[in-house]
Amino acid sequence: MAENYAAVLYGPRDLRVVKWPMPEINDTEVLVEIDSVGICGSDVKFYTDGKCGLEVIDKPIVMGHEGAGVVIKVGAKVDKLKVGDRVAIEPTQPCRSCEACKLGKYNVCPLPRYCCTTTTHGNLCRYYKHEADFVHKIPDNLTMEEGAAVQPLAIAIHACNRAGIALGSEVVILGAGPIGLLCALTAKAMGATKILITDVVQSRLDTAKGMGVDHVLLTDTKWSDKETVDKIVAILGGRPNITIDACAYPSAQRAALLVTRTCGVVVVVGIGGKTVELPLSDAMLREVDIRGSYRICNTYPAALAAVSSGSINLKPFITHHFPLSKTKEAVELAQSGAAMKIIIHPKN
Amino acid sequence: MAENYAAVLYGPRDLRVVKWPMPEINDTEVLVEIDSVGICGSDVKFYTDGKCGLEVIDKPIVMGHEGAGVVIKVGAKVDKLKVGDRVAIEPTQPCRSCEACKLGKYNVCPLPRYCCTTTTHGNLCRYYKHEADFVHKIPDNLTMEEGAAVQPLAIAIHACNRAGIALGSEVVILGAGPIGLLCALTAKAMGATKILITDVVQSRLDTAKGMGVDHVLLTDTKWSDKETVDKIVAILGGRPNITIDACAYPSAQRAALLVTRTCGVVVVVGIGGKTVELPLSDAMLREVDIRGSYRICNTYPAALAAVSSGSINLKPFITHHFPLSKTKEAVELAQSGAAMKIIIHPKN
Amino acid sequence: MAENYAAVLYGPRDLRVVKWPMPEINDTEVLVEIDSVGICGSDVKFYTDGKCGLEVIDKPIVMGHEGAGVVIKVGAKVDKLKVGDRVAIEPTQPCRSCEACKLGKYNVCPLPRYCCTTTTHGNLCRYYKHEADFVHKIPDNLTMEEGAAVQPLAIAIHACNRAGIALGSEVVILGAGPIGLLCALTAKAMGATKILITDVVQSRLDTAKGMGVDHVLLTDTKWSDKETVDKIVAILGGRPNITIDACAYPSAQRAALLVTRTCGVVVVVGIGGKTVELPLSDAMLREVDIRGSYRICNTYPAALAAVSSGSINLKPFITHHFPLSKTKEAVELAQSGAAMKIIIHPKN
Amino acid sequence: MAENYAAVLYGPRDLRVVKWPMPEINDTEVLVEIDSVGICGSDVKFYTDGKCGLEVIDKPIVMGHEGAGVVIKVGAKVDKLKVGDRVAIEPTQPCRSCEACKLGKYNVCPLPRYCCTTTTHGNLCRYYKHEADFVHKIPDNLTMEEGAAVQPLAIAIHACNRAGIALGSEVVILGAGPIGLLCALTAKAMGATKILITDVVQSRLDTAKGMGVDHVLLTDTKWSDKETVDKIVAILGGRPNITIDACAYPSAQRAALLVTRTCGVVVVVGIGGKTVELPLSDAMLREVDIRGSYRICNTYPAALAAVSSGSINLKPFITHHFPLSKTKEAVELAQSGAAMKIIIHPKN
Repeated sequence: MAENYAAVLYGPRDLRVVKWPMPEINDTEVLVEIDSVGICGSDVKFYTDGKCGLEVIDKPIVMGHEGAGVVIKVGAKVDKLKVGDRVAIEPTQPCRSCEACKLGKYNVCPLPRYCCTTTTHGNLCRYYKHEADFVHKIPDNLTMEEGAAVQPLAIAIHACNRAGIALGSEVVILGAGPIGLLCALTAKAMGATKILITDVVQSRLDTAKGMGVDHVLLTDTKWSDKETVDKIVAILGGRPNITIDACAYPSAQRAALLVTRTCGVVVVVGIGGKTVELPLSDAMLREVDIRGSYRICNTYPAALAAVSSGSINLKPFITHHFPLSKTKEAVELAQSGAAMKIIIHPKN
Repeated sequence: MAENYAAVLYGPRDLRVVKWPMPEINDTEVLVEIDSVGICGSDVKFYTDGKCGLEVIDKPIVMGHEGAGVVIKVGAKVDKLKVGDRVAIEPTQPCRSCEACKLGKYNVCPLPRYCCTTTTHGNLCRYYKHEADFVHKIPDNLTMEEGAAVQPLAIAIHACNRAGIALGSEVVILGAGPIGLLCALTAKAMGATKILITDVVQSRLDTAKGMGVDHVLLTDTKWSDKETVDKIVAILGGRPNITIDACAYPSAQRAALLVTRTCGVVVVVGIGGKTVELPLSDAMLREVDIRGSYRICNTYPAALAAVSSGSINLKPFITHHFPLSKTKEAVELAQSGAAMKIIIHPKN
Repeated sequence: MAENYAAVLYGPRDLRVVKWPMPEINDTEVLVEIDSVGICGSDVKFYTDGKCGLEVIDKPIVMGHEGAGVVIKVGAKVDKLKVGDRVAIEPTQPCRSCEACKLGKYNVCPLPRYCCTTTTHGNLCRYYKHEADFVHKIPDNLTMEEGAAVQPLAIAIHACNRAGIALGSEVVILGAGPIGLLCALTAKAMGATKILITDVVQSRLDTAKGMGVDHVLLTDTKWSDKETVDKIVAILGGRPNITIDACAYPSAQRAALLVTRTCGVVVVVGIGGKTVELPLSDAMLREVDIRGSYRICNTYPAALAAVSSGSINLKPFITHHFPLSKTKEAVELAQSGAAMKIIIHPKN
Repeated sequence: MAENYAAVLYGPRDLRVVKWPMPEINDTEVLVEIDSVGICGSDVKFYTDGKCGLEVIDKPIVMGHEGAGVVIKVGAKVDKLKVGDRVAIEPTQPCRSCEACKLGKYNVCPLPRYCCTTTTHGNLCRYYKHEADFVHKIPDNLTMEEGAAVQPLAIAIHACNRAGIALGSEVVILGAGPIGLLCALTAKAMGATKILITDVVQSRLDTAKGMGVDHVLLTDTKWSDKETVDKIVAILGGRPNITIDACAYPSAQRAALLVTRTCGVVVVVGIGGKTVELPLSDAMLREVDIRGSYRICNTYPAALAAVSSGSINLKPFITHHFPLSKTKEAVELAQSGAAMKIIIHPKN
């Protein structure tokens, strides 16, 4: 077996590809030779700031949490996977014994060993081990890159599940970054019949249009909340019953509360600031529910099946490829906003 | 205004097209010049037996409950429709004040004035009046025939809502008649990633295949329950998490309970016999829920939007057209099983 | 029949008891001789400011929306009520044909003809008419005063339904006014095993204690959000899974979002200001849902049954009685905060 | 430490109290000195027939699955329990990695290591080890016997959760054995305002009455389904919206489907025969849902809290006590039907 190498973040903007210990698996784990790892907005935040949300990098950490590869070793008690299986890695390994885990909400387990957080190394490396039941077989008609990109799709599906999107839903998505765009594709696959996505960057809206999103709106940060609401209503011919905030800007959150139809749902999937000024009463008096969506909960199987069945097409979503040695360049490209999904190939 | 004519059932196999009184609307009603009316299995049962389910025809009754047309008069208090609007008629007019209506379950209102039942005439006639809020505008890109065919689609959507179909669902539908087939199309539009439909008639399965259903199974009435279950599992590569019984045969209901995955759902949308022998414990010990689906509940808007957005294509589903004067021939063709959806045009 | 008299608000602090037209019922209405009408916080707001929430009084309006009395006349189509029935009046008469009404959410109907709002007179008068199906028979073992007090109880039950309170729930209620207190009693009747209620007024907490609420906390407006959270957690021995904001103060809403357990629910039942500064991300990242609760939705039957069965005891909740002629004094007493529930008796 | 003894079933009616190996705990387990173990209907079935449901005893097995005791040793990774803690043992140790476990439905895990089944020994012994997170601390104000009796209560709470019992529910429970009776107490604690329990044995109904159940009905096996339905409706003054079948007799299941109100729910908590003749259409056309309830799912905390808070009183439910050496006599008394809950004390 070859040696292991990993993309390790030592501090803000100090990212190095270094030799890294080969993992030893236990009875319930598998060892995966990584083929593809996607770069995500949180990777950019870690790279530039050394922190993301509540997570602060205080020691060297392997990056990456959107990984796919091939199983090369299985633990003694693993019976659902075998050597040679092409797999997508769900980047969590929850505790399985807290209240949240037992209730089926392992995404909010307080001790999740989530890839590339302060407690847990990521999978942007050549060889990586993981609990076998959070490693999912990739259907034969998916590429490895798609297997990696299933990770943000699983996040989008969880957000759309939280939103309760159904056949005939009319959905507004605020923010056309990767998660917002995947929410739009997921909403369509779930039967939403009108979808509007907004952003402050025209090129993102062009990508969304190209991937089949019905309506786009280039927003202007100078607009009042009322202007934003009026423009959305004008385009849709009415209020949406579901609004997904995929950018977490205060102005987007205010517009979400104001524009959503009575009895509708607002889902917040982005990570916002510490506090925000909100027109809460307007939403509460109309029984518009506000729900957060955090990470992934039981949505990897649906994500893989949706791509395999053709419901969701991830190919146009994957725009760039880099070898492991160019991880720094890849992250900086991601930071520029000029790419949609960038994939690193650690074997190269 | 021309005179009114209606297809009236006087008793089993005694269907006559006769001159019929012109309806007078009240303040909350609209008058519709009917363009298209679909023929349904229940029409066939009424025609052949003079009864269907609990409904027994004991006096002459206008047939038809899948109607679409053009508004030609609106009541004084109607503000959502105007003369000239192309509309699909949701065939109920519930009481609005019983427990079920107040809970939003108007489909099980005990006094629903449902078209072509013992209490209420249908809309297989030239001119027909109806409560305005149960008359829905047809989007511009739908034909009148599609507007009529939205009625069975709304039934299928209610069944799929009851089933809780979601992105990634694996669904078996027992019975490939119009409702079964529309359940399959709806399941796909809701994100089901594997769909298997069964029938005892190969031509129905061919139609289903042609409309994009993934998997079909020609069943044999001589099979044991276990054989049916085994064949379904073999085709799908596992058990479905949702099974819809759209034929109400005892053997289908038994197979539904046995084949559905632990924690899954069986929905019964057909009308079965008085009693049936069922392996209930097998389903109960695995927490497989059994739910009926009755008529239509708040699904017309989604049905119209799904056809308009292209999520569901009804065109291949509509196979035959007849003038009002040939209603008897149309019903007899429906009875033969050789047609999928037959449309009567009362203006012709 | 005697003449009709009503307590009419002509403007801020201009409340007069005047002779008023005798109502004429239509076929679906009943005429009620009013016995008891409760005074509520919104009555106080109308009286002092001439407005409440979005409602502004711009013409004389009959006050009152917590009424009970005896049926003295029934419309031709009314079959569930008869002359002599003792009844509680659910103070809405929704449109029955909008999207919300059809979905069973008539509480958010945009045209609800709700008692004592700008469009609709209230029932603080001797004779009052109402749609029969929103008039509920009072069980024999309830007094008329209890029948009137069922109105705020039905609001509290709707709030607790929205919260999803279940056996074993641990509930914090912020605000020990009438609605907060009734939420506490309802939570207990639904099986909540720990209940903490807070207020800035000690006497309200004493009342709550006397009515069986487990834990109380006298809050101080000078506390930081963190102090409030810490004190609640210390008393309960952990975080609540449900928090009901029954006061709509910004500090309470912030504490609600921060204190509620991961995957828990915050319900807002009070009417707050136009905007509020909130620690939204903290709640969203822990998937704490935020839900408004507006008025009453299908909860009168449960409220009447709960009082009749002894699950909820309203007697200690009713503290004062006045004749119609003293309505002004009653409202001013309510404003003082020295009373819990005040009942006006229009017959006196 | 003293030696271990266990009540071991070697075959039908061959139950022996024998010396048994002392368990060795791993890092996530605790060792419990057992104080109290309840005897249940399934114990009786195993004792008399050597099988229960799908479980067949083919080798010697330790009986007991309703255990409580004191922690005497904790694994290295256990941080929520310590030596000396009084605990109730939830009798399952699910796999934690199957689809059901991840969805929070560990009660239907296919590999649950459930006490006293073919794969797993029970806890009717002096010393017993168990996964720590399925061992729950008993509140100080509960006796050990109550801690043991929390096991059937947790089953009843799961059944009532599945039924969706809410404030104002009207509930019929068919069968007044331990589970039926605990369902009645739970329904009351959840806010059900009318509860009727039926049985063929008058003494069980007397016990139910004594524990506060509102209505009882002594049924006769000669009654037709219609007679049973009519009598229930007459007593309740209407149909129940929830019916719990806690006996699994075919006649009870038929009555449950027929008597439940439109849109209501039937829950089956008993284990019935292989097949049963049912009036399925009657329930399906009225959208009465049929749901199984299997074992326990996340309800131990609520059960312990409900007993501790006084919502549910288990004391009258516990009727007999035996030492370990008299287990055989205890099981035979249980079989006679003359006892409600019998507790074995292995230390004696």
